[in-house]
Amino acid sequence: MPPLINEARLWRRLMALAEIGATPGGGVNRQALTEGDIEAWRVVIAWAREAGLEPSADAAGNLFLTLRGTDPQAAPLLAGSHLDTQPTGGRFDGVVGVLGALEATVVMAERGPRPTRDIVVAAWMNEEGCRFAPGMMGSEAFAGVRSIEEIRAVRDAAGFSVGEALDALHRSFPDVPRRPLGFVPHCYLELHIEQGPNLEAEGRVIGVVTGIQGKKTFEVTIEGSEGHAGTVPMVERRDAVACFARIASILHADIGGHDALTKLTIGRLGVEPNAPSVVPARVIFSIDLRHPDNDTLNELGDRLVALCRHRAPPCAVAVKPLIEAPSNEFDPHLQALIARTAATQGHASMPILSAAGHDARHLAKVCPSAMIFVPCRDGVSHSDQEWVEPAHLMAGALVLAQLMAEVAGSRLAEVTAE
Amino acid sequence: MPPLINEARLWRRLMALAEIGATPGGGVNRQALTEGDIEAWRVVIAWAREAGLEPSADAAGNLFLTLRGTDPQAAPLLAGSHLDTQPTGGRFDGVVGVLGALEATVVMAERGPRPTRDIVVAAWMNEEGCRFAPGMMGSEAFAGVRSIEEIRAVRDAAGFSVGEALDALHRSFPDVPRRPLGFVPHCYLELHIEQGPNLEAEGRVIGVVTGIQGKKTFEVTIEGSEGHAGTVPMVERRDAVACFARIASILHADIGGHDALTKLTIGRLGVEPNAPSVVPARVIFSIDLRHPDNDTLNELGDRLVALCRHRAPPCAVAVKPLIEAPSNEFDPHLQALIARTAATQGHASMPILSAAGHDARHLAKVCPSAMIFVPCRDGVSHSDQEWVEPAHLMAGALVLAQLMAEVAGSRLAEVTAE
Repeated sequence: MPPLINEARLWRRLMALAEIGATPGGGVNRQALTEGDIEAWRVVIAWAREAGLEPSADAAGNLFLTLRGTDPQAAPLLAGSHLDTQPTGGRFDGVVGVLGALEATVVMAERGPRPTRDIVVAAWMNEEGCRFAPGMMGSEAFAGVRSIEEIRAVRDAAGFSVGEALDALHRSFPDVPRRPLGFVPHCYLELHIEQGPNLEAEGRVIGVVTGIQGKKTFEVTIEGSEGHAGTVPMVERRDAVACFARIASILHADIGGHDALTKLTIGRLGVEPNAPSVVPARVIFSIDLRHPDNDTLNELGDRLVALCRHRAPPCAVAVKPLIEAPSNEFDPHLQALIARTAATQGHASMPILSAAGHDARHLAKVCPSAMIFVPCRDGVSHSDQEWVEPAHLMAGALVLAQLMAEVAGSRLAEVTAE
Repeated sequence: MPPLINEARLWRRLMALAEIGATPGGGVNRQALTEGDIEAWRVVIAWAREAGLEPSADAAGNLFLTLRGTDPQAAPLLAGSHLDTQPTGGRFDGVVGVLGALEATVVMAERGPRPTRDIVVAAWMNEEGCRFAPGMMGSEAFAGVRSIEEIRAVRDAAGFSVGEALDALHRSFPDVPRRPLGFVPHCYLELHIEQGPNLEAEGRVIGVVTGIQGKKTFEVTIEGSEGHAGTVPMVERRDAVACFARIASILHADIGGHDALTKLTIGRLGVEPNAPSVVPARVIFSIDLRHPDNDTLNELGDRLVALCRHRAPPCAVAVKPLIEAPSNEFDPHLQALIARTAATQGHASMPILSAAGHDARHLAKVCPSAMIFVPCRDGVSHSDQEWVEPAHLMAGALVLAQLMAEVAGSRLAEVTAE
């Protein structure tokens, strides 16, 4: 069998993209809808066109690169990930899934014959959610989870809106046709680095992702009363920081310690007026709660809100839910197919739960979806130290390419039937 | 006996100074060494010169207005307070003590005969410590508590140094002679608003300040490790915010709850990187601890440091002491004299401990010192709502004026002997 990917080209293209927004330490800062992101589009579109793929874009700023199939009635095969990075991002997070899918498609186009169904490579807009928060805007809009109006209204720290940034993006590519938002793919495949230590620890090269753990986020506001640090007696104070400490302690102990799978993070915190000799009047803080089991996640979320309310007096507290993302399970047939393909290619695989969120979470609401993980060194990601062994990366890209080749010419049910 | 002060003039001058840096809500923003502060100097110096008083300034930016006595060998009588305000300051905090002392001195100058000893009205530089922190720079330099070099090196948020600001101040007043830093006064008297609710609650007009409660401040740095909120297991985290919550909870409960006189405030707090989905790596926070009893203050300070260290693991903690200001007791003879004078003038007085710090704390290290408090409405200060009943203010100014008149012509021991 001729090779399914050109490994040297894939690596070269990964390194070329890493130059766009490169940081001095070897990482990448290419946040969504910035000039760097637009430049990445330009480069990727050129590579796609060179192989005869057709670029298109939707209103949510998702980029699609299509290799036309022979049967226009067949639902397209969709594969991809994202091109944007954290401000302190690495060279692999996201890009591996876009360029891996592109490489497989380009080889199919070069080698022929044309596949039965369209093969569409997707780069989802703003997975990371740094400049414009929260992330996964493109895949959420595609899957109908968030409206395009809501997304366009989000503003960055400078007051610039996603809407304005999207309009600028589309103006930069007058020759890339617009397509309607959303369609129903035959299935969706996403290759990604693990961003955790498990594959490396277990000595496996391919992770068959079983699902993504559920996540809830909240913004909590504690309202107390300002006062002079020297004169107001302790018993008369409504000290917002003292209240925060009470609430945060019990949340970390009670919710965070619920079981070994629970994760609770209070990562952002602001105090007003934030002066050493003034009893603080207000604290606003974030809560990030994750658990793979949805019932447990819901139960912990409810208990968290109750604990905040119970521990707040004499201050007042308001708990605002932000993100509600239940855990999902990826398509079991595709999971089995990934494990089988890895075995055929001689790679040790293992089932793995994703602790981080990915666009595939939203695609799974639209069509059978699956993710392939490859190990990253020491589990480090969102860092200029992020690194993937080229051999591991090529193993993941090959598994993806073989899956894509099989599904492109057949129906999923035929491929996955043992 | 002719009146010791001109009440109408004193009120008019207080209201005139309140125009310099006036805020829309009726308060004053006239921070140390700003243009407003310089303008206040200009106005006060003009009033002093009009009455034949001689202005002079020292290297620490303290302003002195001297009425020459007949005996150049007699140690001067010193009285005053400060002209600078908080950014959200009121019309009375500080200014009352400077203009009250000035009014008494101006009346003595107008009425004659010349007093035996020099009478010196002082306006201490930067009591509030907002633009340049910490405050009481002028009285600390005068009393030798902090060196002028250390003070000149302090910078504001814009990077401008106290040294540069002092040089600009002195350039603004070429006709005001420089005097050496520090001298030994016969005694020091300071009139001030209470900035607390006790006089009002007890229905007293004159507070005989027994002392100022001790204060220690600290800056605490907690060092943890950054991590992904979705992937790092709770047991492996070194979460700086979780560590802060543990430490702050125990400090508020154990130290803050030690007795009814203890005051503990964590008013300032910063988190890094301060992102909702990142396990926080660093927290820096302030502690303000106050107690009137020095042994208790020291004991609580030591316990506080031990608790921070004990509760920090798995994070690292560094506790840096900033301010060490033990409580002081004002001169008992002067206290008795204030009470007696108040009684003579028909005003109900009471002993009162100052919960806030004042310049008199440092003068008490140099000479017998005392403070007179007058009530302020609802105990409110550092606010545009700060208000003193004119009758209360005049009562305080009259007690001050009578003390000054008595001490100006005699030795303190003769005056205070019953």
